This record gives sequence, C-alpha cells and structure tokens, in this order.
Amino acid sequence: MQRPVCVIGLGLIGGSVLRAAARAGRDVFGAADVQVADPRVEPTVAAALARAAREDALIVVAVPLPAVDEVLRLVAEHAPSCLLTDVVSVKEPVLAAVEHRLPGARFAGGHPMAGRSVSGWEAGAADLFDGAAWVVTTEEDTPADAWRAAVELALDCGAQVVPTTAREHDAAVARISHLPHLLAAVLAATGAEGGSLALSLAAGSFADGTRVMGTRPELVLAMCEGNRGPLLAAVDEALGRLGAARGSLASTGGLAATVRAGHEARLALEDLRGADSEEIPVDLTDPEAFETLRDLGTAGGRVLRLDGDTAIGALPA
Amino acid sequence: MQRPVCVIGLGLIGGSVLRAAARAGRDVFGAADVQVADPRVEPTVAAALARAAREDALIVVAVPLPAVDEVLRLVAEHAPSCLLTDVVSVKEPVLAAVEHRLPGARFAGGHPMAGRSVSGWEAGAADLFDGAAWVVTTEEDTPADAWRAAVELALDCGAQVVPTTAREHDAAVARISHLPHLLAAVLAATGAEGGSLALSLAAGSFADGTRVMGTRPELVLAMCEGNRGPLLAAVDEALGRLGAARGSLASTGGLAATVRAGHEARLALEDLRGADSEEIPVDLTDPEAFETLRDLGTAGGRVLRLDGDTAIGALPA
Repeated sequence: MQRPVCVIGLGLIGGSVLRAAARAGRDVFGAADVQVADPRVEPTVAAALARAAREDALIVVAVPLPAVDEVLRLVAEHAPSCLLTDVVSVKEPVLAAVEHRLPGARFAGGHPMAGRSVSGWEAGAADLFDGAAWVVTTEEDTPADAWRAAVELALDCGAQVVPTTAREHDAAVARISHLPHLLAAVLAATGAEGGSLALSLAAGSFADGTRVMGTRPELVLAMCEGNRGPLLAAVDEALGRLGAARGSLASTGGLAATVRAGHEARLALEDLRGADSEEIPVDLTDPEAFETLRDLGTAGGRVLRLDGDTAIGALPA
Repeated sequence: MQRPVCVIGLGLIGGSVLRAAARAGRDVFGAADVQVADPRVEPTVAAALARAAREDALIVVAVPLPAVDEVLRLVAEHAPSCLLTDVVSVKEPVLAAVEHRLPGARFAGGHPMAGRSVSGWEAGAADLFDGAAWVVTTEEDTPADAWRAAVELALDCGAQVVPTTAREHDAAVARISHLPHLLAAVLAATGAEGGSLALSLAAGSFADGTRVMGTRPELVLAMCEGNRGPLLAAVDEALGRLGAARGSLASTGGLAATVRAGHEARLALEDLRGADSEEIPVDLTDPEAFETLRDLGTAGGRVLRLDGDTAIGALPA
C-alpha cells in the first residue's frame, strides 16, 4: 500500500495535487489557512501534520514562497521525520529554507509546470497535471527515498518528471515562466495606455500575450520576486534583445534579426513538443543514476514511469 | 442587388474575406500572384481588375504592405474608378500610396483585427471575422460612398466596425498588435537560449506569450516594419516599463508596481469585452457624422449595422 499524501496549502496547485493523487488511488488529506469544505481537509495545519506523522505520509508543501518558512517550522514541530516535497515555483529558496528549518530532512523539491490564471481551491482539478512537466530536484545529496516519493507523486498526478538541480530549475523558469509574466505585465500596461480604442482593437496577439496577467498579483509577485537573481539575468537578456530591435528599427527600419530569431525559437519549442522520443532505462541503484537523470533533463527528456528500481525516461529524438 | 467584391491577394485574410463575403450572399471573385484552385479566382490580377471595372465591383486590396504599391498601379491601369478599400495591417502608408497612385480615388481603408498563426489561402475561413473589430478609416475627406462600401463589407463579413483615423489606428495597433509580436520574438529567443531544459519546462505562460511567433516571419516583418514610427514609440514605452521593473527588482527586490499595473490593464481589457453596451444611432447625413463616429471609436465603441442612412453604434456602458 502506498504512502498517504498530506498537502499543506490548498490553492489551485495544492488543491489539484490532492485531487490528482486521490484519483490515482492514494490516501490524501490536507490543510490550509483558509476554509475549505471538503471531508479530506483537517481543521488546522498542525492537525494535518500530526496526522502525517502518525500515518508516515509524504508531506507536500503547496503554499506561496513567502509562507513556506512558517509551514516548515510547523513540520519541524509536528512531523520532522516524514518524507517531504513541495510544489513551489522556485527551488533554491525552498531548499535553503528546508536546510535551515529541517537540517537532515528527507526532502526532494518539486515543481509542476501547470497553471491557470484563476486561483484557489475551487479552481483546482484532478487533471491539471496530465502530461505536464514536473521538476523533481535531483542534487548530489538528495535522499533516494525522498526523491522516489516525489517522483511517484508526480507520476501519480499524471505528470512527467524532469530531473534537474534547484539552480538549473530556477534559471530555466526565470526564462520560461517569470519573464513571460513580466513581459505580459509590460505589454498589458503599454496596451491599456492606448485607451479604449486600443483595447477595443486588441485581438489574439494581445489577448494571448497578456492572459497570465489575469492571475492575482500576489501570486505573480511571490513567484517572480522569489527568483530575483535568475530573473534579473533573464530580464537583462530580454532588455538587450528588445533594445537591439529598437536600434535596428530606428536606424535601418529592419527587424529581421529579431523576428527570425523569435520564429526559430518558437519552432524549436514546437519541434520539441512534437518530437518522437526513445525510451531510456536508468538503473536507480547505479551510483551515477542522478547524474544520468540530470543529463536526461538537460537534453529535454523526462521520466515517464518507474519500474522497480528502473526509471524509464524518454528523450526527444 | 449588392455590389460584387473583388479581392486582390488571397492569403489568410484575403481568402477569408472572399469566403465571408460569399457566405453573406455577395458575388465574389479575386486573384493572387500564387496559384489558388477555386472557380472564383481569375487567372491574373489584371484580369480580376478588368472584371471589377466591368461589374463596378468593390476592390479589396489584401496583400502585404510591400506589395500594395504594385497592386495600386494595376488598379490605376485597369479599374481606376471602382470603389476601393484594403485589409492591410497599417493604414497611413496605404493611404499615402493610394493618394500617390490614385489621386481622387474613392477609397476608405480597412483593417480586420483577426488572424491566425497559420497563413495562406488554405488557412482562410468564412467565420474568421465573426464578432471581430474591423477598422474603417474615417477621415474628414473620406468619400461617403467608399466609407459605406467598406463598412458594408466588414458587416457582411460578420465583423463590427471601429471608425477611426489612419493615424489613430496605426498608433493603437503598434501597442496591441505589433508590440506583442516583438515581445513574443524577444521572449521566444530568450527562452530558447535556456536550451532544451527550459523549453521542456515551458507551460502556458511561455506557450501563449510566443504563439504569434509561429507566423511566417515575412508577414510579421511586413506588418511591423510598415508601422515604424508608431512602433518605435510603443517599443520605447515598453523598454521604459521593463527597465523600471528591472531597476526595482535589482534595488528593492519588488515588482509590485509593474505587476499591479499589468493586472489592472488586463482587467480593463476583460471589462471592456464583458461590458454591456448601449445603442447609439448616428445619422450619416449629418455633416458631423464622421466626427461622431470617430468619438465612438475612441471610446471603445463599434458600428453594429446600417439601417438606411443611420449607423447603429454600440458604446460600452
């Protein structure tokens, strides 16, 4: 029988993890600091953690980054020896908080790459993660049992696991998640500055490019501000590219370099998504298994399932 | 019986105009410089224009901006007295080209705000413009018969008409169409620079924010480069906003001003789209009708239908 799952934080992501794990037949319970009318929800976070300790559950931290430290303090108090993972949008700050609050914890970080611009328990869905990438941090010193528990949770939730380090994760999501949110904010504000006429004329490119700005600002801020260093680097790169486009448009009138690079990049995304893949078995008892798995993640590969002590990966051909 | 419609250029937009006008019961024909296997397509542009002259058709210029001048030269040669409109993505350069090639032409510019990231005749659809905004340029000296013919075409195609000047149009689309394409290019390239790992982790925010970069670069370039002055102004505003975000993130770690402004702007878009509207009748025989119509457009309003000499507008409440 599989380990129960205890989800702390029941917003869009935590609420979806609880539902998706239940769909897979896992015993699930959880708690949040807001009222959630569901029989699986304990009255307080402390009560949920005490139950997790009794049932040896996997604890999933599913609160925004600013609330993580307080949850970890409660974990240290009520359930210090449980296996631990999280679904927070940045990984180095969570890893540092775990090392501070729970030194020696059996922890592997996680991040499902799925979302919606609506938030809260009611917006959650059991199928939110189906086919999505779900990062599980795979450091040299990640405990094998915590890693495996986090991977099993992700797979049970319908996701595919991308093994990588917290650092590589944070640099990548700065580019493909946090920068998109900032550019969407800049685009939305610049568009609205054109008044009702401009908004009335807005069609697909503006609607798509600003969609994520429908999200509650607190959630976007927690995510972006929590990844300050990597996001600064990504913003600087974007400023450089936009400035170069500006210079080219002003001087020669041409934007070919910018537009062609953007088109090639978009095709690279579509190619990766449409690519055939070959299956790669990785022996988890191999001392270099984590290195092999990280290489798989770097190459755009994912773990599709576990088969005993073998992780079955898929690498785009 | 309504005037026939002659569409020159049968890509995504021109091909959709032809199909949509046919759906409304209009007689349609056209031509393109590529092979299109359809009985309504004349063998050459010259042949289509000669037929337009014989049948007193409304001519619709539906080629990318760089090809407009050559089409107008042929119009001047074969059908100089036909009513004329266009569906090109910028309006001041087209107006200037018309004044140069066909001084005194009965012309009103048009721009349907609809598109797809696929292009070409095969991608066209009769319902592409249903409910979309369709700008009809409404200058002091726009001939009333040309204005009315362009409006009727837009309404027949299922769109709602936004009356404004070429100058106001170009400034607005720089913000809500051309800037989104440039930011999408910058985002796509910055994301792809993160390699296969970053692209593998890309989810909704990146996929949505880069979608328009699937479009053929030639089309994006024709559109953006053709609106150089207004686009430069929009890019400078975006650079200023992104630079301010960068400075704030670097100095205080905070992005609240940027994200909250973006959220408010997105809500303004959603509010405008969801707003109830009141009907405003505009008497087209009134000497100030065009001024009233431009005010309607500036306020986010649209013309929904013509009723004799009255344009029925809708203004968001």
